[in-house]
Amino acid sequence: MNKNMKVLGFGGSLRKGSYSMALLQASVELAPDGMEIEIFNRLGEFPPYNKDKDDDPPKVVTDFKEKVKNADAILISTPEYNYSIPGFLKNVIDWGSRPYGHNSFEGKPVALLSSSTGALGGSRAQYHLRQCCVFLNMYPINRPECFVGDVQKKVDDSGRLMDQGTQEKIKEVLEALAAWTRRLVSGRGGSA
Amino acid sequence: MNKNMKVLGFGGSLRKGSYSMALLQASVELAPDGMEIEIFNRLGEFPPYNKDKDDDPPKVVTDFKEKVKNADAILISTPEYNYSIPGFLKNVIDWGSRPYGHNSFEGKPVALLSSSTGALGGSRAQYHLRQCCVFLNMYPINRPECFVGDVQKKVDDSGRLMDQGTQEKIKEVLEALAAWTRRLVSGRGGSA
Amino acid sequence: MNKNMKVLGFGGSLRKGSYSMALLQASVELAPDGMEIEIFNRLGEFPPYNKDKDDDPPKVVTDFKEKVKNADAILISTPEYNYSIPGFLKNVIDWGSRPYGHNSFEGKPVALLSSSTGALGGSRAQYHLRQCCVFLNMYPINRPECFVGDVQKKVDDSGRLMDQGTQEKIKEVLEALAAWTRRLVSGRGGSA
Amino acid sequence: MNKNMKVLGFGGSLRKGSYSMALLQASVELAPDGMEIEIFNRLGEFPPYNKDKDDDPPKVVTDFKEKVKNADAILISTPEYNYSIPGFLKNVIDWGSRPYGHNSFEGKPVALLSSSTGALGGSRAQYHLRQCCVFLNMYPINRPECFVGDVQKKVDDSGRLMDQGTQEKIKEVLEALAAWTRRLVSGRGGSA
Repeated sequence: MNKNMKVLGFGGSLRKGSYSMALLQASVELAPDGMEIEIFNRLGEFPPYNKDKDDDPPKVVTDFKEKVKNADAILISTPEYNYSIPGFLKNVIDWGSRPYGHNSFEGKPVALLSSSTGALGGSRAQYHLRQCCVFLNMYPINRPECFVGDVQKKVDDSGRLMDQGTQEKIKEVLEALAAWTRRLVSGRGGSA
Repeated sequence: MNKNMKVLGFGGSLRKGSYSMALLQASVELAPDGMEIEIFNRLGEFPPYNKDKDDDPPKVVTDFKEKVKNADAILISTPEYNYSIPGFLKNVIDWGSRPYGHNSFEGKPVALLSSSTGALGGSRAQYHLRQCCVFLNMYPINRPECFVGDVQKKVDDSGRLMDQGTQEKIKEVLEALAAWTRRLVSGRGGSA
Repeated sequence: MNKNMKVLGFGGSLRKGSYSMALLQASVELAPDGMEIEIFNRLGEFPPYNKDKDDDPPKVVTDFKEKVKNADAILISTPEYNYSIPGFLKNVIDWGSRPYGHNSFEGKPVALLSSSTGALGGSRAQYHLRQCCVFLNMYPINRPECFVGDVQKKVDDSGRLMDQGTQEKIKEVLEALAAWTRRLVSGRGGSA
Repeated sequence: MNKNMKVLGFGGSLRKGSYSMALLQASVELAPDGMEIEIFNRLGEFPPYNKDKDDDPPKVVTDFKEKVKNADAILISTPEYNYSIPGFLKNVIDWGSRPYGHNSFEGKPVALLSSSTGALGGSRAQYHLRQCCVFLNMYPINRPECFVGDVQKKVDDSGRLMDQGTQEKIKEVLEALAAWTRRLVSGRGGSA
């Protein structure tokens, strides 16, 4: 692992003032010592995945896959659309996992954040993402889970997360991700 | 309901020779008397959903939403990517369900087909789709379910479904969808 | 359908003062005109399901299956254990669905209630139940969904639901179940 | 970790000749060097979970919890009932996770086997189990997954697994579980 643990964060919705993007941005500031979070914010540039383009992917895809591969761990912040993962976000993950045999997510530790304007905080999207992680061979932390309900009351007009409880929770998530990543690397015989 | 029951079918992957598109195309021919299936095959044109575009959606979206609204029932044929719904297909559904209060899928009966080159036939994607149907307020048929495993052995080089067992199953699905649609319409006090 | 719509309710946890039993009991009083809800409260008597006993089931099982078969609709109130359906409750459903070919739940309309002391209100259990309904060939209402979070603040010491918002929600659920049941019966050619 | 890695296996259905019990029994023989699998086969003795008995659990429960706690890893073999975990098996897990704060499964690595007489091999039950593992804070291996479809053709009349492909798959599962367990223990700073 690098001296600093490198985490690649992505997600959000594409609208201006996205709540789940606010969670990602807050994460950058809340990261524990020794963890550096970079946000990949070009999700709107991905075309619909098409296997016929596997040999000639758009540049945004190769850039994304490179960032994922170089990361020690992944942080995904998802809204919930129609009780599942937003299509555009799943499409990014689909591109990142292909072509067959070149899954960039292979073996990565991961933490999930989700949010919604209702009480359930995007949990349905998050459990679908967990199932994707099995195929992707990613290792999600189990605890704590971070479901931000009523998110519109917790982010201010400039798209900044103001809610202290949520800040605290994200901090715990990132600390758990750091410990989990060190454990998995060290257990593999790498240095932590 | 129209004299003929109108079913809008969509799905498939975007590659040439898509197996799940083969299932859709077979459906057109296997439809029972009185059912007419139209395939919407412009899924590759949908940009990533962005709420900021709700008031000014691309033409492919308004065309799609119009077709969905005019249909008596829906037929979705999904591959499985990373143990869930392909992102590009979910993105189409996300567009079709917005803006808030203008969900085109509202109250539609629906049948699901899925396929994969493995043994499980896309079932994981299909159960995620079923959960979406709750929010979308669609009514999926319960039986029969159609999971086409080892699909590469059942479709020929020209992208045509050759497997008789699968043809039979699709026929049963469409008959169940017809009966279910008639039941829901008639139960609402409409004519069947 | 009977002059009165007969609904069989079951669920709850087995402890005294069960919150999900409080929801069921409230339902009895909140039922709309023309709906009669009977609670089956002998869930603690079911032995672990064993196929070898299919030909000689315990009396509680035959009693339960008889009640289910005679009901026009079903109401299940579930707690959440370990992010899924409580085992003892799933065991009751397993018994009710056997032996093969004698599924008592076949074709029944159903509504689901769930509760938990956390924010998510048992939603994870409820979505697992929805998946069971596909196999059982039950028809759950889509809306409204009823997830009662922080349930310990909404039920008093005597095990009585006091929260007005939850009472209102349950009322809406029961009205939706009544309309859905009438629609399914009438659409089948029965009288509503 | 003990010189030998100790794995506790449980599951099966309760009928004589249970297929999923056949998978467990095969596992005992297929375990790699250094792994010892013990089967806990008293699942039929668990009463329905009742929180009021938390302070005075039946002996089978305390015996089970003791075995779980002493195991380095867990192996669960599940049939599928009504598209989910069999109730009696989930009930065993519910008992093992209580009382609150005394979850015996805490932090255990785990592998899952499932089987069915259909094509999907119990996968639906297995994904529900995976969701339980999040709350239980267990760590399932991602690969390989073991879904034994058409299991009735793979087990002989004496309840013995005869199918070579399945034997090979179980071997791979157990090797992956061994490696995963060593990695998690060693990464925590224990000796492997």
